[in-house]
Amino acid sequence: MLVQLERGVKPTPLFAIIPLMSELTDFIEGRNPVVEALRAGRPINRVMLSKNVQRHSTIAEILRRAREQGIPVEHVDDLALRKYSASGSTQGVIALTAAKEYVSLEDLLGISRGKKEDALYCVLDGIEDPQNLGAILRTADATGFHGAIVRARRAVGLTSAVARASAGALEYVPVARVANIAQSLEMLKKENVWAIGIDMRGDRDYTAVDYRMPVAIVVGGEGTGVSELVRKRCDILARIPMKGHVSSLNASVAAALVMYEAFRQRNRQS
Amino acid sequence: MLVQLERGVKPTPLFAIIPLMSELTDFIEGRNPVVEALRAGRPINRVMLSKNVQRHSTIAEILRRAREQGIPVEHVDDLALRKYSASGSTQGVIALTAAKEYVSLEDLLGISRGKKEDALYCVLDGIEDPQNLGAILRTADATGFHGAIVRARRAVGLTSAVARASAGALEYVPVARVANIAQSLEMLKKENVWAIGIDMRGDRDYTAVDYRMPVAIVVGGEGTGVSELVRKRCDILARIPMKGHVSSLNASVAAALVMYEAFRQRNRQS
Repeated sequence: MLVQLERGVKPTPLFAIIPLMSELTDFIEGRNPVVEALRAGRPINRVMLSKNVQRHSTIAEILRRAREQGIPVEHVDDLALRKYSASGSTQGVIALTAAKEYVSLEDLLGISRGKKEDALYCVLDGIEDPQNLGAILRTADATGFHGAIVRARRAVGLTSAVARASAGALEYVPVARVANIAQSLEMLKKENVWAIGIDMRGDRDYTAVDYRMPVAIVVGGEGTGVSELVRKRCDILARIPMKGHVSSLNASVAAALVMYEAFRQRNRQS
Repeated sequence: MLVQLERGVKPTPLFAIIPLMSELTDFIEGRNPVVEALRAGRPINRVMLSKNVQRHSTIAEILRRAREQGIPVEHVDDLALRKYSASGSTQGVIALTAAKEYVSLEDLLGISRGKKEDALYCVLDGIEDPQNLGAILRTADATGFHGAIVRARRAVGLTSAVARASAGALEYVPVARVANIAQSLEMLKKENVWAIGIDMRGDRDYTAVDYRMPVAIVVGGEGTGVSELVRKRCDILARIPMKGHVSSLNASVAAALVMYEAFRQRNRQS
């Protein structure tokens, strides 16, 4: 059964109220509905599986298809599963659907080529807060970024909370979800896209970087910043100057400052 | 009785989890505790009064003191009041305390003089979201703003949710709360502070404004932008360029772009 808690998110300039849950989204409950959704290739953010679920053949197929499609599977206890369930009969499995389909990294490169512009991506290494992801997509739309790249694990997916916080921008900004950000940066490098990590320990001011070449700016998660492995793959580490007492900016603010600098430089050029 | 749901918010660079309520804060319940808090001048964001409360002399004093101190009083039905109550015996009145004391507009001017710098304030015309206010205070700290000015009504106060989202910046950025933003801008103008409204209909790019004079940048609320009355009092209306489909940026992102431009200009000067 498909329980729709929210639907029909429309582009709106109005303020997106803070959601009470970080993933207000559609839930698909039960073995057969979940496996059908996976077979149909519906965009799914996450599968939650009871720790006590019986090893039914359908469960095996769910696990296999989730793995193939790079969808995180979370093993939870029955109580947690019941909290998400509207019907009360989950048969030990719930899938959380995404508000929008993800694209592939290849799709993103194709979009840049189609625009006849140098690649301009925003890579998010672990943004967990839907309001931040929404705000970043909103800025990406405003600054002409070609798309965003997000991490599959320990990161918020394209939930309707994100759609709402994006004020409609989710409809316009393609998002690729990847299993491994570091590997994706390697792949982008082969396409001559420079990776510019935003890091408080960076050796260059973010305004001193040239964004008129093909670039992917890399922004870290809220608590942790850019992860060690990803930082090592960055060609440039740029820092945002700060003169106060607090050691970091809000992640969507940091991303926006760099995106607007890139926008400014590219517009000055043309 | 004082029910402390949260206390001891410490500066932390860690991610501030979205609060489940927009005002996770301390509640003071009951006629005498509330009137005592008002007499003692404790920082209070809001007083909630039952529509059915008896016109007791203490209630009259609460109303008078709240009015004198510019604290909004909200008349709610008993059900709404009960939802906030921990003790169940509110006697028809609850006060929501602030995580930090507000300063006065005069205090802010004194701070700028003390720093021997031209005034640099951020005026928030109706920010309702604690995460946005927290992010703005965080950026204000990072960019050396002398303080923020917020509206008393239809705006979030200095709650502990704001303190948390500010990652500690609330401790360092003085905040003045005023009944009337338009009047406050008039008062600032008498002190030679220019009011620069951020408005999508502005006639000047925000990077073309000179922030090296005494300035107050004015940012509107999430849904509504800068209100008509306030916009009329602005000396300059500046716009942030956008090339996408969405018509506005997240409020904390818009504020940050302008604050960083001011920061950049002032640092270049020195």
